[in-house]
Order: sequence, then C-alpha cells, then structure tokens
Amino acid sequence: MPIFSRLIDTWLQEKILKAIGGAPIRIVLEPGDSIAVPDVAPVATVIIRDRRTLAELCIDPEVGFGDAYADGRIQMEGDLVKFLEAVYESWPNAPAARSWYARLTSKGMDLWQANTLSGSRRNIHRHYDLGNNFYKLWLDAQMLYTCAYFPTPGTTLEEAQTAKMDHVCRKLRLQRGETVVEAGCGWGALSLHMAREYGVSVKAYNISREQILFARERAREEGLTGQVEFIEDDYRNISGKFDVFMSVGMLEHVRADRYPEFGEIIHRSIGDTGRGLLHFIGRSQEASFSRWIRKRIFPGANAPALRRALEIFEPRNYAVLDIENLRLHYAKTLEHWLDRFETSQPQVAAMCGSEFVRAWRLYLAGSIAGFRTGSLQLFQVVFAGSKCHPLWWTRAPLYDDAKPDIEKMQWTHAMS
Amino acid sequence: MPIFSRLIDTWLQEKILKAIGGAPIRIVLEPGDSIAVPDVAPVATVIIRDRRTLAELCIDPEVGFGDAYADGRIQMEGDLVKFLEAVYESWPNAPAARSWYARLTSKGMDLWQANTLSGSRRNIHRHYDLGNNFYKLWLDAQMLYTCAYFPTPGTTLEEAQTAKMDHVCRKLRLQRGETVVEAGCGWGALSLHMAREYGVSVKAYNISREQILFARERAREEGLTGQVEFIEDDYRNISGKFDVFMSVGMLEHVRADRYPEFGEIIHRSIGDTGRGLLHFIGRSQEASFSRWIRKRIFPGANAPALRRALEIFEPRNYAVLDIENLRLHYAKTLEHWLDRFETSQPQVAAMCGSEFVRAWRLYLAGSIAGFRTGSLQLFQVVFAGSKCHPLWWTRAPLYDDAKPDIEKMQWTHAMS
Repeated sequence: MPIFSRLIDTWLQEKILKAIGGAPIRIVLEPGDSIAVPDVAPVATVIIRDRRTLAELCIDPEVGFGDAYADGRIQMEGDLVKFLEAVYESWPNAPAARSWYARLTSKGMDLWQANTLSGSRRNIHRHYDLGNNFYKLWLDAQMLYTCAYFPTPGTTLEEAQTAKMDHVCRKLRLQRGETVVEAGCGWGALSLHMAREYGVSVKAYNISREQILFARERAREEGLTGQVEFIEDDYRNISGKFDVFMSVGMLEHVRADRYPEFGEIIHRSIGDTGRGLLHFIGRSQEASFSRWIRKRIFPGANAPALRRALEIFEPRNYAVLDIENLRLHYAKTLEHWLDRFETSQPQVAAMCGSEFVRAWRLYLAGSIAGFRTGSLQLFQVVFAGSKCHPLWWTRAPLYDDAKPDIEKMQWTHAMS
Repeated sequence: MPIFSRLIDTWLQEKILKAIGGAPIRIVLEPGDSIAVPDVAPVATVIIRDRRTLAELCIDPEVGFGDAYADGRIQMEGDLVKFLEAVYESWPNAPAARSWYARLTSKGMDLWQANTLSGSRRNIHRHYDLGNNFYKLWLDAQMLYTCAYFPTPGTTLEEAQTAKMDHVCRKLRLQRGETVVEAGCGWGALSLHMAREYGVSVKAYNISREQILFARERAREEGLTGQVEFIEDDYRNISGKFDVFMSVGMLEHVRADRYPEFGEIIHRSIGDTGRGLLHFIGRSQEASFSRWIRKRIFPGANAPALRRALEIFEPRNYAVLDIENLRLHYAKTLEHWLDRFETSQPQVAAMCGSEFVRAWRLYLAGSIAGFRTGSLQLFQVVFAGSKCHPLWWTRAPLYDDAKPDIEKMQWTHAMS
C-alpha cells in the first residue's frame, strides 16, 4: 500500500474514532483491516466494504452510515440495537459528530421539508402512503402506529394499544355526548374507540389519503359513520367547536416555529372552556432527528424539547394538568414492531426490495436505541383552558382495574 | 359639593371601574355614595372609608387595596374569597390594571428583594421567622406549610399532609439506604418522614433559624439525629453527593434568573445518575405575585410559568418523567388554614395586632382565589438524570391503597 493512501486511511480512521467517541464497537475495513478495536468487549462489529464508504462516513456520518447500511456496503456482526445504543450513549463525547457538511445539508433539509400546507402533504404522503398492506404486516390488528401503553412489561401489543387508547380517554375524562376533534388520526383506531367505548362524537383529520380511506371503511363496517367523521384535510383547516382536542403522534410533523399557530388552532377549536391531550415524541434538550431519518424515513419530522412544546399552551393561558413520560413504553412498542417486521421480512422484501428492508430495520432499531438511552422521550400532556371548570380531583381513576363507568365518573368543579 | 371635587370623584370612579374590569362587585364610598353598581347581584360590597383611600386605589390598586384592607380603611360586606375570585376572573379584562407607578415600584422591589445570599436570608427571615407559635395556631400538627394532597376532598388536613409526604416519596420510589438532600425543609416534617418511613438518610437545608431549631429538636425527640442532619444554610451551599434531590415549596423563593444556577446545584448534588422532585407554585403564563404580597407577606417570592421552570432541567439534559398539577389541592389546603386562622384570631391578634390579622386573612383568602381561578397552579415535577437507569414502568403504584413495601418495590431498568 503506497504511503499516501496509508496516510489517508489513518486520517479517516481518526475521524471515525472521534465520531463514535469511545463506544465499545469494533470497526473493520474489508478485507480485514481493523480500524477501531475497543479496550472492552465490543457490543458489535461493523464491517465496512470499501474505502469510498469509509470516506462518506467521515464527511457525513449520519447519512453515510444509514445509506451504506441500507445498501449493504456496511454489514453488522452482533446486535444492531445494542450497537446503536452504544453510539447514542457515546455521542455526547464526540466533538466532531456534526461536520460543516452535515450542518449545511441539515439547513437545506429544513427548507425543503418545511411544513407548509403542500410541504406537509408531500412529507406525510412519503411515509404514511407506503401502502396499508405494508403496515398491516407488522402493526397490531387495529393499526396503531404510535407508542402503546403496557400496564405490565408482559402485556401483548394488541392489549397495550387498546390500553393506550383507554389511558388517553381516561386522562381526558371523556363523557357520553361530548364532541372531540382528533388532529392526525392515522388509520382511525382511536377515533372509533372513543366513539364506540365512550359515546362521544368525533371529527378526525388526516392528510394521508390511504389512511383516511381505510378509516372510513372501518367506520362503515362498525356502523359508526353517524358518530365519526373522517376528513382528508390538514389540521390547520380544522373547523367547528369541540369539548376536547386530541392529538396522538402528530406533533412530530409540526415544525417548532409553527407552535404558536398550532396553539391558535387548538384555541379556535375548544376555546377557554375545553381540554385536550397531546401525545408526542420529544426530548430533554433541543436536537434534530438524524438527518438520515429525515432524508429517507420521516421527511419534515421534529421531536421538540418539552420546554419548547409548552409554547403551544402558554400564549393562550392553557393550564398543564398532567405530563407523563412513557419512553420505556415506546422502546417496548418498537421491540414488538421490529420482531414482527423481521418475521415479515420476505413479504416486505417482495413488496419493497431488500434495501428498503434494511433501511426500515435501521430506523426501527435506532428508535428503540433512542428511547432506551433517553435521546428520545415520549410525552403525554393533558391541558385545559383557563375557564375549564370541570377538573378532576386525583389521577387515581386512571389506575382502577375496572373499566370506568363513564356515566358515573365524578368530576370535581374547581369553583364549587 | 363643589363642582371641582365632583369632577375628581368621577375621574377616580372611572379609574376604579376600569381596574375591576366589570366584576360583579358593589363599591361604596362612605358615607354612602355608590361608585360601582354591577348589573348582576354583587358577590360582595366594598366600603371605602375616605377619598384619600380611593385616590390610593387609583394610583396603585394592588398595594392600595391590600394596605387599606389591612388597616381597616376598606371594609368588606360579603365573602372575601368570592370577592377576590371575581377580581381575578375579571382581571384580564382590565387594561389599566397596571399603572406606571405599579410597574416602576415592581422593578424597584425586584432589585431590593433580589435573592442574593444575604437578600434571601432577609426575605426568608421576614416570613418564616414570625414565630413557631404563630404558625402552630393554624398549620397541621406536623407543621407543613405547603400544599397537601387530599386523596378525597373530605380527607382531613393532618391526613392530607401525611398523604402528600407519601405521594412525593412514592413518586421518587425512595429505597432503604438511599441518600436524599432536601432544599428548603421548613420545620423538618418531610425529612423526618422520609427517614422514619422510607429508611433513607437526609441532609436538609434551610436558612430560617426558627425552623431549623424546631426541626433539630424534633429529630432529637424522635431519635433520628443519626439519619437526618438539619443544616442552617442556603441551598447554594449544598455539598455532597446524593441519590435524590427533593425540594417542596422552595422554588418560589428562587428568582427565575437563577434557574440555571439552581440546575447546576442539582447536578452537583445528584449528577447524571440521580433523580429528584420539585414541588412549587407556578403559573400557566409569566406574571409576578401581587406587589402587595411581595411587599407585606412574601418578599422576593416568584411563581414561574411552567415553561420557565423547565429551564432548570434542560441545560443538564435531565428528563422530565412526571408533572402533576395540584392546584385544587392547594385551594383546599388554604381553606383549612383560613378556617383555623379565623378560629385562632384572638390569639393571633394578641400576638401580632389586628392589622396583621387582616393582612394575613387577605393573603390566605387571595391565595385560595388564585388557585381556584387558575391564576396560580401547583406543580410537582419528577425528573431524572440522563444516566439514571432505574425508571418505573407505570405510575400505578402511586395509587395502591396499601402502603408500599419499599424493600420489595419493583424497578424496571431502562437498559434491561
């Protein structure tokens, strides 16, 4: 090997070692040159196919790694989730993690993926309109694509998704005859559950065409079309007055600079007397989703610091009543999804190709690692208008084993 | 009455009507001139003794009203709490509520009451060193001067204060043998409770001399001096490493510009592996305590918007795990205190004079009104360091009727 090429290798290796910041990972450049050998037993070995891939990793580790893993130029020996956990854990030690190139393209991505009305439609279409048959392969039977709630770690995924729906309904003390608006309703499971189990009327918005068609079909099958209206439109076009604002897993698609506008839309819908719940992926500190995730998986996605998310409520004097962090439940939910995804691998590959399989495996595994290590959090925020008089006394009824008798549920009036 | 004097009266009346912003309150200037007669049945009648008082109310409604009520120049017919609720409810409609004079003196107060080390000592001394015998007259037997937790609205105050202590201990999943630092320990009840009931070691800080002496005496009586150390010092001088940071009702004495410093003190005490709880009076939107409260009752006090309080946690990447809003519980706690205070009125008057009685009645009644109407909120925030692995699975154990068996309490490890 000529001396010049060896110098470049050494420089590349140093960049890589800096970027992984001392994580217990072994890195091998084929045909067998070890680049990184940790002092402790490695959690995984990364095999890099060629020098070009190595160079791409140095210029742009996030996108470089994701793309090379997806197309097979990077192979992994060992547990992918454990590998990603090790990277996330050591990330804060990596000073050079974000290159000038990464920063520049991140800004470009922000502009390109701005959630204007048309931008949002394009972003949402790319992820959620991959085909209902694809999602059916690895989601639960009711097709919920948000964090489930596991009363115990051994709860099944189907039970945990139903428990999640009851958890948010109980948190809002839904009462028969009330009106609810749901912003971002996915395949409609929660809207139908609220109508069927709690006797409320629901107007549900979503800009994913595939999901709305599916949801409408389900409403017809269940005979709930009189109680639930599925509307193919943007949350910014919500119209009408409601008792309750519900949004589970949509805030991630609202850019932070639009939070005051989002607060206005909530206020237009429920005024000062209503109440609501936002369920969303957040963080302890401001940070962007990995650029690879934003490029290949979730265009326009954003997980806000909790403090930032409160900018939605503060201008309109909404009171925060309850915040619960369910990040371990999202890790558990994702473990179920990844298991089912791996089982369905042949079908997914036949549908979308093997590069897609590898990309989605990386996305699901990376999300598990994010929630386990705490670089991602899952918040449920219950809030109420400044004139919302019916407030509950304690959170104890959330934890009654018996299904609540909604008609008899006691409300304590703030003014009484 | 000469025409000039009548013109001034009219001008003063208009100012007053603007300040109360349409609240259903009748205002009478002795010997019987009605200034404000609401369209609906008034919740109370305010009788203003003389034209000087009326003028003071116009220049500075907050301090003018408080001082005139305290020295008897303003009398009240009807329910004082209901009157204050009506004022708070209508306050947002009052454009002229804050005069130039009020804004200027508010700034001056901020400077004078700054919580530097010596400023804090002076502020705390003025409120908490009024004498243990005074507080014994109307607090519960264990002398807790913070929001209680009422499992049901009918719970007694003594039970509710014990329930509050168990509620915060359960929220933190205290385990035998752990170390806890308490910042602002009052008369020591919570520190002693944690040591006695949960088997932890506690180092507790307070700069109120009277309270610390009382707390030390109780520790001796209970034989807990080996487990609880009461230190007469500022929270900024906390030293040592702990598993848990606990602070109930002290953040109100920390000015918002000192939150990053407060976060540093927490981090110095529990690092990235510990967990903690802050219990504090907050708000939905930024606002100051009434200037009368800051002048006569609580110098240097501050109730932050929730979003602002999160500035404590964000710089050090602490994860918020649970936030509960207990404002109705504080209204209920204050109702108990006001009842006991009224019963003890002769003793308080003998101790501190009748002007003091009236001032404290106004303070307690105003606080009830604040929590009922939502201009004040009570937050309990549970947080954990970025490397704090033991996290709980759900909040259900908080609501078990049985006292938790701390030794057996299950922890779910984030990394497992």
